[in-house]
Amino acid sequence: MAATAWTSTELADWMRPQLARVEAALEQWVGAGAPASLAEPMRYAVLDGGKRLRPLLVLAAARAAGSVGAPAWLDDAALRAACGVELIHAYSLVHDDMPCMDNDVLRRGKPTVHVRFGEAGALLAGDALQAQAFELIAPLDGTAVAVPAQVQARLVALLARGAGARGMAGGQAIDLASVGRRLGEAQLREMHRLKTGALLQASVEMGAACAGELSAVATDGLRAFGAAIGLAFQVVDDVLDVTADSATLGKTAGKDAAADKPTYVALLGLDGARAEADRLLAQALAALDASGLADTAALAALAHMVVARDR
Amino acid sequence: MAATAWTSTELADWMRPQLARVEAALEQWVGAGAPASLAEPMRYAVLDGGKRLRPLLVLAAARAAGSVGAPAWLDDAALRAACGVELIHAYSLVHDDMPCMDNDVLRRGKPTVHVRFGEAGALLAGDALQAQAFELIAPLDGTAVAVPAQVQARLVALLARGAGARGMAGGQAIDLASVGRRLGEAQLREMHRLKTGALLQASVEMGAACAGELSAVATDGLRAFGAAIGLAFQVVDDVLDVTADSATLGKTAGKDAAADKPTYVALLGLDGARAEADRLLAQALAALDASGLADTAALAALAHMVVARDR
Repeated sequence: MAATAWTSTELADWMRPQLARVEAALEQWVGAGAPASLAEPMRYAVLDGGKRLRPLLVLAAARAAGSVGAPAWLDDAALRAACGVELIHAYSLVHDDMPCMDNDVLRRGKPTVHVRFGEAGALLAGDALQAQAFELIAPLDGTAVAVPAQVQARLVALLARGAGARGMAGGQAIDLASVGRRLGEAQLREMHRLKTGALLQASVEMGAACAGELSAVATDGLRAFGAAIGLAFQVVDDVLDVTADSATLGKTAGKDAAADKPTYVALLGLDGARAEADRLLAQALAALDASGLADTAALAALAHMVVARDR
Repeated sequence: MAATAWTSTELADWMRPQLARVEAALEQWVGAGAPASLAEPMRYAVLDGGKRLRPLLVLAAARAAGSVGAPAWLDDAALRAACGVELIHAYSLVHDDMPCMDNDVLRRGKPTVHVRFGEAGALLAGDALQAQAFELIAPLDGTAVAVPAQVQARLVALLARGAGARGMAGGQAIDLASVGRRLGEAQLREMHRLKTGALLQASVEMGAACAGELSAVATDGLRAFGAAIGLAFQVVDDVLDVTADSATLGKTAGKDAAADKPTYVALLGLDGARAEADRLLAQALAALDASGLADTAALAALAHMVVARDR
């Protein structure tokens, strides 16, 4: 039996206040105390745009993990983790768009950061966003935060692993080295597991870590869920790169095919890629069931949303 | 009375095994588990080069802080902190050398990372090094590390602050915005306090944090020491940019003047800058005295080394 998911209306009702919290926190935190010439590109890169999928995964996973007994600090930890992972995501987009990488001029319907602030400004803003992600989770003024040091250290560990050479950055390096080459399905899967999947999976695991100690069964279930929707996300991304237009995507469509990048569509065909996304969704929902956690409806609904999205 | 410093021989005898430990740890850790195309530029950027001043400051500060009672985890924590701060330093050099920043082709007597591995490779390697700095301090497999979570969280907080928008990255942004403009001494000092000073100060504070709880007097003394030698380092850098040649420096000499960057030499003249370095050294040594810590001879000797260095 697959885990029960909320209807899209129920999901929307839950998402609205969660997104409002995240936006308010980002508005307050991003670039605070930075020199104006740095704060501006940092805020431009993060605020007023983005689906906030990773923060929502953190918050939904914290909700599920907290259903076995929510500690007092859960909300604070989850909000910091949610914003931290979003800053990592945002920095990766800034650097990814730069001329030496994808050389993209359009993101979320706006000029990319380097187009607006110059390459040096984009480079520094990305670097500072990565540092701030860790600052948010382990703030220097620790007395302001009720989150136990154990939870902070675990969140840092999960985020650093997901972002680094054995996660997102590692996947980007494989991607970079693979342009114009033919990857097999196993290699393509490994690249995406790292490039996009690692941070999505980290989001789910960070949400779970906010609750403190969790059973091994619950932890394993959430980890498997994160891995499956991490891959599903990328499969859908590859489908959308072919089927959607730039205006809907808010970024340049068709660029992967144009750059001769290996994609799931190139490998499996359009129908095959769609079937693969459905298979991964079923796998994600089965993992939620196996976690034994009570309150997984938000996570299940987000998984459906990831596969059904049109941008 | 100024704090007693080791002679240069005593310092060398202490440094030799410390540097060997740091090099061995970096050799083991940097880029481990990363795809080869990423591990290679990461390791090129870090290994086999560099004065390792920041790691030495961490280790010397841990020694001083541990002189009031060294906890069992002190050495492990200090080694991880030492390597973490060095990875942040290394990433900042990689990104700083890129064409959109200083466009430098020579570093530590070798071609810079982007010259050797391309701009995209340098960008990704720098990003991955920053993430790994935090991974080293808060490893995911926490059971392998005896360092208490409280110490891990504090080390992450200090490093993230020192590296980020209110630290190194903030100083670089001010630097970038100031090219061709005339900065007053206060503004120049603020830029350098962030750009170079913040990470050097963080090194000292991280070393102190490795010991766990420390008295406020000791903490304040070490912080003031770190701030003073952070500034002294940059003043000496500005002097060397004018007086040393590229072969000795292992990087391009005279580039600040050529880029019309504001420097202490431009502001105070060569003799004035040298006098300022001496004043800051005296200030640093006085702060060590005020810390009340017993074993500050290594820190004092490093401070002398910073001011007397020729590269």
